[in-house]
Amino acid sequence: MTPTTLPLLSGGLDSCVMLAHLLDAGHVIRTAIAFDYGQSHRIELRRATLIAERLGITLYTQRLDDYGAMIHGECALTGHGAIPDGHYTDETMKKTIVPMRNPMMLIMAAALAMQRGINSIAIAVHAGDHTIYPDCRPEFIGAMGQAIYHASDGRIALLAPFLNMTKSEIVARGHQLGAPMHLSWSCYKGGKKHCGTCGTCVERREAFNLAGINDETEYEA
Amino acid sequence: MTPTTLPLLSGGLDSCVMLAHLLDAGHVIRTAIAFDYGQSHRIELRRATLIAERLGITLYTQRLDDYGAMIHGECALTGHGAIPDGHYTDETMKKTIVPMRNPMMLIMAAALAMQRGINSIAIAVHAGDHTIYPDCRPEFIGAMGQAIYHASDGRIALLAPFLNMTKSEIVARGHQLGAPMHLSWSCYKGGKKHCGTCGTCVERREAFNLAGINDETEYEA
Repeated sequence: MTPTTLPLLSGGLDSCVMLAHLLDAGHVIRTAIAFDYGQSHRIELRRATLIAERLGITLYTQRLDDYGAMIHGECALTGHGAIPDGHYTDETMKKTIVPMRNPMMLIMAAALAMQRGINSIAIAVHAGDHTIYPDCRPEFIGAMGQAIYHASDGRIALLAPFLNMTKSEIVARGHQLGAPMHLSWSCYKGGKKHCGTCGTCVERREAFNLAGINDETEYEA
Repeated sequence: MTPTTLPLLSGGLDSCVMLAHLLDAGHVIRTAIAFDYGQSHRIELRRATLIAERLGITLYTQRLDDYGAMIHGECALTGHGAIPDGHYTDETMKKTIVPMRNPMMLIMAAALAMQRGINSIAIAVHAGDHTIYPDCRPEFIGAMGQAIYHASDGRIALLAPFLNMTKSEIVARGHQLGAPMHLSWSCYKGGKKHCGTCGTCVERREAFNLAGINDETEYEA
């Protein structure tokens, strides 16, 4: 059976490469799903649209107003406090944790997949996320996959093809596939260019550097 | 450590008894959470308010407009087709499955619990739900509990104290505790009185009957 898949596409680097990776692996993908949860770096949603267009699929943007209202003010990404500079694994990056964000997005994606008869959903969490974000770790992904499988009566699988890859390995894979990484957006500050100094910018730069791939991103600093 | 708990309170019989059960067991409960997902039997939300008042706690009603819009039309409970009469375990009752309903409610409850520093959430699924609803079964509850535990970095446990009890055992427990079962609402049709013929009404009547407890519910038929 051909796997039909609904990938989560944030507009960031990882999900951009994952989409190209799944298409390359033969998954039937008509639609990707993006989430608007009131993130201040809203430019990533526009980038998700561009990436989907480039790869020939439609983007379904799901608002999460109810969830956004509940968590508003809890996290630097949704308006509470400044985005911390520094390295992604620093203690200060914990300010960018959004409570239950991945579980919420995965459940919404699973509900859409059930309606459309799609038999898997996919998320681009990777090894570099594990330190800071509990809902990116293998033990979470494993349990959540089981929960979604059972809640859907065995109809929907959760895929996380990059779970144990580093970001530089993702960049290398993206380069190999010709994924439109230049369209992706990482910076949490949401300015006109990538700031170059926040945790995700530092991580993005490092990943291209380690992979030995030319980084076409324009950085402020 | 005293367990602080956020119970899901639908206004139905099971969650009414669970709330009394948890209070009796010494859980610290300030608030219960109810969900407005566009269910046509909206009277249950008013009943949830009455039950919470009676037991001395506040009710937090969380709208699920985004989720409700996504699933609208998929299920008899949210406006698509007539509520089927008959027994709860009949094939026709599958029309009352709401895709990913329990996962969605549990994730929202877990997000609220994280914000308030509450260390567990509780849901009143029971053995009678297992046949029809995949997201009420032990394998789902087990996996979802693990997923919530990991996503919250070990801060939140999922409790399901009635998971292996029958509805008549729940009625017996409610009677023993003096739970305000007469305030609870089961009927999916959402009229002024319980219809007496839909699957949940049949199940409610049977439960009181099997438990040998006087049923104060007024039924139409």
